[in-house]
Amino acid sequence: MADTKEFMSFLQQKGFVWGPSPEIYGGLAGFYTYGPNGKLLKHNIEQAIRHIFQRNEFWEVECPTVMQKEVWEASGHLGGFTDPMIKCYNCKAAFRADVLIHEFFPDAPQCTNDDELLSLVKEKQMKCPNCKGPFEERIIKHNLMMRTTIGVDTEAYNRPETATTTYLPFLRYYDHFRKKLPFGVFQIGKAYRNEISPRQHLLRCREFTQAEGQLFLFPHQKNTFAAYDSVKNNILPFWSHQLQVDKKAPVWLSVEEAMTRGYMKSKAYAWLLHLAFELFIGMGIPQNKLRLRQHHPDEKAFYADDAWDVEIELQSFGWTECCGVHDRTDYDLQQHEKKSGVILSVQAEEGGKMHPHILEIAFGTDRPAFAVMDLFYQAAEKGEGKPMFKVPYVLAPVKVAVLPLMKKDGLAEHAQQLYATISKVYVAKYDESGTIGRRYLREDETGTPFCITVDYDSLTKKEVTLRDRDSGRQIRIAEQDVLRVLGALFDGAPFEGQGKVM
Amino acid sequence: MADTKEFMSFLQQKGFVWGPSPEIYGGLAGFYTYGPNGKLLKHNIEQAIRHIFQRNEFWEVECPTVMQKEVWEASGHLGGFTDPMIKCYNCKAAFRADVLIHEFFPDAPQCTNDDELLSLVKEKQMKCPNCKGPFEERIIKHNLMMRTTIGVDTEAYNRPETATTTYLPFLRYYDHFRKKLPFGVFQIGKAYRNEISPRQHLLRCREFTQAEGQLFLFPHQKNTFAAYDSVKNNILPFWSHQLQVDKKAPVWLSVEEAMTRGYMKSKAYAWLLHLAFELFIGMGIPQNKLRLRQHHPDEKAFYADDAWDVEIELQSFGWTECCGVHDRTDYDLQQHEKKSGVILSVQAEEGGKMHPHILEIAFGTDRPAFAVMDLFYQAAEKGEGKPMFKVPYVLAPVKVAVLPLMKKDGLAEHAQQLYATISKVYVAKYDESGTIGRRYLREDETGTPFCITVDYDSLTKKEVTLRDRDSGRQIRIAEQDVLRVLGALFDGAPFEGQGKVM
Repeated sequence: MADTKEFMSFLQQKGFVWGPSPEIYGGLAGFYTYGPNGKLLKHNIEQAIRHIFQRNEFWEVECPTVMQKEVWEASGHLGGFTDPMIKCYNCKAAFRADVLIHEFFPDAPQCTNDDELLSLVKEKQMKCPNCKGPFEERIIKHNLMMRTTIGVDTEAYNRPETATTTYLPFLRYYDHFRKKLPFGVFQIGKAYRNEISPRQHLLRCREFTQAEGQLFLFPHQKNTFAAYDSVKNNILPFWSHQLQVDKKAPVWLSVEEAMTRGYMKSKAYAWLLHLAFELFIGMGIPQNKLRLRQHHPDEKAFYADDAWDVEIELQSFGWTECCGVHDRTDYDLQQHEKKSGVILSVQAEEGGKMHPHILEIAFGTDRPAFAVMDLFYQAAEKGEGKPMFKVPYVLAPVKVAVLPLMKKDGLAEHAQQLYATISKVYVAKYDESGTIGRRYLREDETGTPFCITVDYDSLTKKEVTLRDRDSGRQIRIAEQDVLRVLGALFDGAPFEGQGKVM
Repeated sequence: MADTKEFMSFLQQKGFVWGPSPEIYGGLAGFYTYGPNGKLLKHNIEQAIRHIFQRNEFWEVECPTVMQKEVWEASGHLGGFTDPMIKCYNCKAAFRADVLIHEFFPDAPQCTNDDELLSLVKEKQMKCPNCKGPFEERIIKHNLMMRTTIGVDTEAYNRPETATTTYLPFLRYYDHFRKKLPFGVFQIGKAYRNEISPRQHLLRCREFTQAEGQLFLFPHQKNTFAAYDSVKNNILPFWSHQLQVDKKAPVWLSVEEAMTRGYMKSKAYAWLLHLAFELFIGMGIPQNKLRLRQHHPDEKAFYADDAWDVEIELQSFGWTECCGVHDRTDYDLQQHEKKSGVILSVQAEEGGKMHPHILEIAFGTDRPAFAVMDLFYQAAEKGEGKPMFKVPYVLAPVKVAVLPLMKKDGLAEHAQQLYATISKVYVAKYDESGTIGRRYLREDETGTPFCITVDYDSLTKKEVTLRDRDSGRQIRIAEQDVLRVLGALFDGAPFEGQGKVM
């Protein structure tokens, strides 16, 4: 993409994303509004996620987004979930120190503690980007949690992730699945992080939608995981720790070959990593824009076992982390058992009582929505041409636009009737304003796969024109066949076979 | 329903609703978790809402759930959104004074101010339900807003409703809909109210999901609203202010007759009230469990014009308000214009610049989900019989269960393959544990419409047994026809016509 600014303007102009919100009050950084087209797209992405999780026997749950202090003490979010903040001595503006340093000095070394950060700020003689004033000589640990109060005085927090809230009803799941492991659950919902410097539009917001799936299983089940066999021959783009160190590109390998090379320790984890890839394909991301990046040993949480990310290559911001797949071992259940005093170990078929392990896919729906907009937005050629949104048809916000050729002579009424029929099945749009050519362009810009035009012949012969977005071709079909033809087209039938080519 | 306790236990046992959450930490009142069956049901209800709004040309948006102080000052939530709280002098437990009085003394008069409440507490010599101690002699105005902080020190609040956040991008909508009114938008999302005494399970939570639709239009468009004609002959159960005063029952009238009687002032409002009713029918509520209740003149907000509620008759809690339909006039846009300084009037075709009015449907998805569970739960007869969940088939959490007659002889593998095929289209479940009769019962309890049994003949003749939940009847169909037959059945085709009756 030549021009990120033009893309951002497209998102606003075409009703995809507005913000920072609320705009009339000046906006609050890191909060956005999805307009009609953006919300439809995001919802389609969330439905794709649901569908893929469900047919892999993960069950959706919905847990509270606000929980009391104890939960976040146990999860570690209240103690350690902080960013290093530095403030301007003059204007008091606050910045994330590590991010600021690397924005201005991309080659600066990675700092591992606050003293190193502070030394770098001094050494580089950094000034406040706002007012050019000097920085305070201290790093403040800024906690990312949004605190609130429940009842009269119960300290509570907006959740910083769905995951912890999903772990807590483990004993309920265990009963629900009739005391049989493994089982999978997932949750799609809001999470909140009070970032010091939200940035990169939807990529780092203070409020965002997460989608996280958890597989609960006993450690001895990790390498007898039957579903592994159904995916082991599929190939994925693995970028192992060593390939990264050697500055080599990712390699496409079968899951089984990657296991043989020791990239992953367990079949269950390998299956889940494959599922993460499948989720991103299902969300419309082309496979050549995806790679699986292994965490370096010093990058992993101390309790974590296998750990890989899914990354997407964006036009606007390059390779971007969009998902983490982690073997969290029994760390979380142990922590919450200690804090709550409720025993969370359960009877295994063999080996007595034990704490199940949790394998987790952690991602969100804002980044994939942004990625789909970013990857399928096609800017207009300079001086000519038109912008297009070439989103996969199944993800398109509006599926069908119904357009009367003219408003007069009963064409509008006829088209409205047809719209009423179609909108019972598809998200559809009725539009009568402007020339027909202009209306086609409008639909191309927001990615509508099919336009149906009602003209004078429609009144007498009951035929309409059906136009395909990507080819721009048109066919003539009987009005009574419209739903059947649309059904076939969305199932992948070739366009020309459906009617008289015009 | 004989026994609310038994119903609540059903909700927990069968994976519908757990809580208060998080249970292992003792639970926080007013926060619940939807288990696998509850979440599927709630999602189906939300999809029904989307579908009905969309084919009535309302467009979904997603606005932030956290906004800064100024927004809530302008909306009136920070000033006046309070409940009267009274605290125990001894144990410091807090209660909502008006609710507590009426729980213990149902016939006590409605109080209109804090002094009256306090007098009643004294007069009735009320004691703390916790510790029997005396109450403090003061009413505290308890604000329902959950406060938090954004950035370093920006005062902000979790939204107490979706509506205000939906109003704010009005100018964005206006551009998006190409400066043409009326237009409709809706939002389904979380809202938060720090109730002093959350109660009645999902009916009054501190965190809940709202679904609110707004119609923006100029006042002069209210009585030239074309869509009115398509609904004016439909009959609805109106319970007018006067009928309530006269202690008479609601009457079923056509929308037009209700207009003639002066129940509603505008055609646009009448159409919206009809849409609200249609939404509740679409969410599965039987029409004989619904009524439209007009607000009394002294019950309405000072700015409100037409105002009616949708009420549902629950088995557990009787008639319960589940939706408000309000003509909010131009109150909100005027308020936010004043506070933000941004002009929110726009050019009407005639009459110069003006502020559009907002007509609103305000409801949620937790109460309808609770209502569906409440109304379609059928307790077991004493001593015999079995509990059933007779939810409408389209709303059922799981649509199809695939059951091998036995685990052995390849039946399980065969059934798993069939499950894989079906789960590409329907939310399905594979279950091999227990006798087949017991598995049928299990599916009846959670409302699964169809069970498919794979037996020895399935291996040779490629036929399976299909069982219908409500009739308990079974037919035999070819395996290759399964998806076609399920499609026909969910479209309403008669069960017996689909295969050999057994």
